[in-house]
Amino acid sequence: MKKIITIGREFGSGGRELGRRLAEKLHIAYYDREIVTEISKRTELSEQYVQQIVEQKPLPLYPIHVGQSFYPIDALVDPSQQIYQQQSLIIKEMANKGDCVIVGRCADYILKDMKPFRIFVYADMASKIARCRSRDKETEPLSDKALRANIIKLDRGRARYYEFYTGQAWGLPLSYDALVNTSNQDIAQVADALARLFQ
Amino acid sequence: MKKIITIGREFGSGGRELGRRLAEKLHIAYYDREIVTEISKRTELSEQYVQQIVEQKPLPLYPIHVGQSFYPIDALVDPSQQIYQQQSLIIKEMANKGDCVIVGRCADYILKDMKPFRIFVYADMASKIARCRSRDKETEPLSDKALRANIIKLDRGRARYYEFYTGQAWGLPLSYDALVNTSNQDIAQVADALARLFQ
Repeated sequence: MKKIITIGREFGSGGRELGRRLAEKLHIAYYDREIVTEISKRTELSEQYVQQIVEQKPLPLYPIHVGQSFYPIDALVDPSQQIYQQQSLIIKEMANKGDCVIVGRCADYILKDMKPFRIFVYADMASKIARCRSRDKETEPLSDKALRANIIKLDRGRARYYEFYTGQAWGLPLSYDALVNTSNQDIAQVADALARLFQ
Repeated sequence: MKKIITIGREFGSGGRELGRRLAEKLHIAYYDREIVTEISKRTELSEQYVQQIVEQKPLPLYPIHVGQSFYPIDALVDPSQQIYQQQSLIIKEMANKGDCVIVGRCADYILKDMKPFRIFVYADMASKIARCRSRDKETEPLSDKALRANIIKLDRGRARYYEFYTGQAWGLPLSYDALVNTSNQDIAQVADALARLFQ
C-alpha cells in the first residue's frame, strides 16, 4: 500500500503521537514541527508567528480596512495566504522526497493528486481531557471545564482553517480514508496495529 | 487483538462483502442472514416479515390505537420489540461461541459488554450507486436518481432503527472504533488490509 500518510486529529486525541510512532514503525519520514520551521525560514516570519497562523487563522490578523489607508503596497500581502502558499510548496517537496507521515496542515488536501492515505484521529471528550492533563504536568493544572473549553476552541480553529483552504468538512468521514477512535486506547498499541495496514 | 468484530455500514458501501471477506481471511465465524433465519424460527414469524422489521422498523407496523380496542391481550405484544429481544439473545449466543464478524443489527451495542471492535463502512454516493448497479444486473436497471433515493431511504431506516435501540448516532465516529471509506476501493483489498489489524 502507498505510504504517504496524512493525519488530521482532534486536539488531545493523541494523533500527533500516533503519527510519530507510525512513522517510526514504518521507518519512514515524519513531518510536523519541521514544516513551521521551514516556513519561518523562507518567509522570514518568526516561528511563533507562523505557528499562530498555521491551522488556526485562515484570515489576516490585521484589520481588513488597511486597503483604504496609505500603507505601502507590500503591507497588503496577506501573511496568512503567504504562509499557506509556502506550506503547500514545502509539504509537496517533502512528499516528493519519499514515503512519509505528515500531521495536520491540510496535507491531505494539498497532496490530493498523490492520493495519500488520509487518517483522522478522534476521541471522546473524557479521553481528550485525560490525555491533555497527563502530558501537561509542568504547568498549573487546569480544571476539566477549562481544558474542555480549550479543546473545543482549538478544534474550532482547526476546523475553520481546514474548511477555508480545502472546502471540505474537517473531521467528517467523507474527507478521509479511515477514522480511528483513540478513546481509552494506548497510542503505541494503536500505532502498532495501524502500521500493519501498510506492511 | 480481540476478534469480535461488528460492522455497521451504509447501503451500497460494500460493508457486508467486507465483513464476509474479513471473516474468511481471519478464519472466524460470519453472521448476517443467519440471524434473521434464527429469529424467524424462534418467533414463528416469517423470514420475510422479520427481514422487513430488522434494521428498518423500530416501531410496530400496526396502528397504535389498537390498545383501545377489544383485541385479545396477545395482540398487544409488539412484534418489533419481540424481534429485537430475540435478536439480542441470538447475537449474544453467537458471540459467546467464539470469535466472529457480525454485520448490522445493532450488534455493536448489544455486545458492548464484550468490547467488540466496532467498524463502520461508508462511501461517497457515486461509489454506492456504482456498487448497487454492478451487483444488481438481473433486474430492470434503475436510474441514478432512483438508486440514490433508495440508498437514502434505506440508510434513513437503518439510522432510525439504530438510534431507537441504542440511543447512539448511526454512522457518527464516536459510536465506533474505526470508520473505513470504501469509495473507489476494491473490497477484497480493503478486507486484506483490515485483516492485518487483527493478526
